[in-house]
Amino acid sequence: MEKGMNGNQNSANGPEFEGPKNITIKGILSLLMENLDSDDKRRMISLALGDPTAFSCFSAPSIAQQAVIDALSSGKFNGYSPTVGLPQTRKAIAGYLSSDLPYQLSPDDVYVTAGCTQAIDLALTTLARPGSNVLIPRPGFPIYGLCTGFRNIEARYFDLLPENGWEVDLDAVEALADHNTVAIVIINPGNPCGNVYSHQHLEKIAETAKRLNMVVIADEVYGHLSFGANFVPMGIFGSIAPVFTLGSLSKRWLIPGWRLGWLVTNDPSGIFKNPKFIERIKKYCDINGEPATFIQAAVPLIIEQTKEAFFSKTINMLKQGSDICYEMIKEIPCISCPYKPEGSMSMMVKINLSLMEDISDDIDFCFKLAKEESLILIPGLAVGLKNWLRITFAADQTSLEEGLGRLKSFCHRHSKEQ
Amino acid sequence: MEKGMNGNQNSANGPEFEGPKNITIKGILSLLMENLDSDDKRRMISLALGDPTAFSCFSAPSIAQQAVIDALSSGKFNGYSPTVGLPQTRKAIAGYLSSDLPYQLSPDDVYVTAGCTQAIDLALTTLARPGSNVLIPRPGFPIYGLCTGFRNIEARYFDLLPENGWEVDLDAVEALADHNTVAIVIINPGNPCGNVYSHQHLEKIAETAKRLNMVVIADEVYGHLSFGANFVPMGIFGSIAPVFTLGSLSKRWLIPGWRLGWLVTNDPSGIFKNPKFIERIKKYCDINGEPATFIQAAVPLIIEQTKEAFFSKTINMLKQGSDICYEMIKEIPCISCPYKPEGSMSMMVKINLSLMEDISDDIDFCFKLAKEESLILIPGLAVGLKNWLRITFAADQTSLEEGLGRLKSFCHRHSKEQ
Repeated sequence: MEKGMNGNQNSANGPEFEGPKNITIKGILSLLMENLDSDDKRRMISLALGDPTAFSCFSAPSIAQQAVIDALSSGKFNGYSPTVGLPQTRKAIAGYLSSDLPYQLSPDDVYVTAGCTQAIDLALTTLARPGSNVLIPRPGFPIYGLCTGFRNIEARYFDLLPENGWEVDLDAVEALADHNTVAIVIINPGNPCGNVYSHQHLEKIAETAKRLNMVVIADEVYGHLSFGANFVPMGIFGSIAPVFTLGSLSKRWLIPGWRLGWLVTNDPSGIFKNPKFIERIKKYCDINGEPATFIQAAVPLIIEQTKEAFFSKTINMLKQGSDICYEMIKEIPCISCPYKPEGSMSMMVKINLSLMEDISDDIDFCFKLAKEESLILIPGLAVGLKNWLRITFAADQTSLEEGLGRLKSFCHRHSKEQ
Repeated sequence: MEKGMNGNQNSANGPEFEGPKNITIKGILSLLMENLDSDDKRRMISLALGDPTAFSCFSAPSIAQQAVIDALSSGKFNGYSPTVGLPQTRKAIAGYLSSDLPYQLSPDDVYVTAGCTQAIDLALTTLARPGSNVLIPRPGFPIYGLCTGFRNIEARYFDLLPENGWEVDLDAVEALADHNTVAIVIINPGNPCGNVYSHQHLEKIAETAKRLNMVVIADEVYGHLSFGANFVPMGIFGSIAPVFTLGSLSKRWLIPGWRLGWLVTNDPSGIFKNPKFIERIKKYCDINGEPATFIQAAVPLIIEQTKEAFFSKTINMLKQGSDICYEMIKEIPCISCPYKPEGSMSMMVKINLSLMEDISDDIDFCFKLAKEESLILIPGLAVGLKNWLRITFAADQTSLEEGLGRLKSFCHRHSKEQ
């Protein structure tokens, strides 16, 4: 049985960057977990995933839970929803996002998806045609590379600049784009870097997108989770260049497992209006699985009734967590953090291998760290930046302090000065 | 903004059959609904969707609802699940399906999906490579045509034979297949035909698949919903040819909106075993959205505790519904049903256009029927068979009798004898 074994192989990525089309964070995580030392009696600490629900201090709002229970108990939402989403869900999401925009979104601009992951696929697949390419940030979120690989879309990577607050290297973007470039991906607040882009920088991105005739795919799954700078939604610049805003309830409401996301077309000037294209998005929704109808039905209440105090508690914990990490890393040899995170749940830390005596690269670093310290961090390669580390600071204070303490011991032990 | 507008266009289907890659049942349904006559004061009756939850006699088991509420209320399932599904969910589904098989499935054979629709895409996309083709039944379920179109997989259609209980035309299958054929799709119990295939016929399909070196994609979303013949799962023949079983809780548990489905690899002889292929399925799961974690967590209890009485009540209602339709259709001029359904929720009815005086085809029939009788049926073209009708019998007795009564008036009014 050899037929059907090979599948569509992607050869789009440049030779220097073979990682993300084959690596997922969950994939490398499970390999690291297998490398733990069972003789180590300390608890395992994972600062690896953008899913803080493992820590009891990060718990979902009870109003959200009750809204879902009520929708389910009503017995009215056991049937299929329209594949683009329930009308009331689309309306609630349009209203939620419009409150930060200079124009009003229509419910028809909203496509409800099974988490932001599905919104990524929806955006990339419906925009691409044979021969298309998409510009993707490095470092970034590996699903973009995996998805373009599966869909035979060429991924072209532009750098984020750590010395400039992980801003987009716009010169690189101009150099990479050609007439087959259909979109540029922006993740803001940033995963994995913790960046929060300024109004000015986002406007420049929009102007670049306009000049290069491409859509901005704005991944705002961490939208509003900013503490060092104001979060500005990309949709504000939708009249300069069309924006596909991707988001979900996952991060801000601390319910990633509910799989309630969205793709929203921000195009107030109608630059992108084309009935055929909208038809294509709808058809693609037809072959995808939606979120459960009763969860969708709860969204209007969840958005309306979640208190500001819930959001600010989360943001305070994230700020505190990022401060702990940033300050403790200053005291750790062989690693450095060039940018204090201002949002999201993770930060990037550089390994200075020349100061270490028996660590060959970031993968080696993370495997030895798991083995010796029962501490799980994601190697930078998994997010596109070799010899860096991604550290999630969405954890409780004790875990962060203990985790960073172990990281310090590890770095001391492996530094050349030892 | 012309870039990105065109998308991957499929030109794979033969010229005689341009329908299903562009038509979805929900798409045509909404057009029919727009054609209702607002002056008609009778209630609209829809016998169009395989979603009986609109009729109060078809309601979900309360144990299922409670299991989901308990999982949600525990607060333990707000985080991400593994993208292939929670271990306990995979185990429960493996156990559920194994009880009808001569061998034991492993939890690793199970991939949890957001409904059966996502399982269809998972099967087709992971099996196909560039140039692949897939054999699809006609009539069938339009998502197969839509999905192959989106994925640039060639769809080749074989006929189901109404005079032989809608069995597969195996000679046609042999003639259609070539070295690029990776799979044959079987829907059993059948949508839209209501067929339930015999052990013998399924075995012949497996042997044909073996000879032609292809996988059987067995769409068993209506599994166990049979009343005229015994349902035999295709997995029984997994040692003859590898089988991908697609299914969900949607139909048997009457909860289509919960989006809890699966793809299961039935391959006891390891014909298909290839770590790269399994890796490909897993990676594809990574870029898809899963069902909500707390719904997945409820699956073991739902499967274990739903009473036999619940299932038999549904089956009795479906049998009664199909009997009403079958008997009433005998009394209606211009249409005929060549096969009494034995399972699923729908049946196919042939229009004899030569007996009608002002109906041009099935589309015209259904639009006029909606307008004149506030009755919604799906035109056969939407499921691949021009000048037939698909009638869903999963409705309450009153709706069926009233609906078929209106159909009778309509046919009388438009018959040449009038």
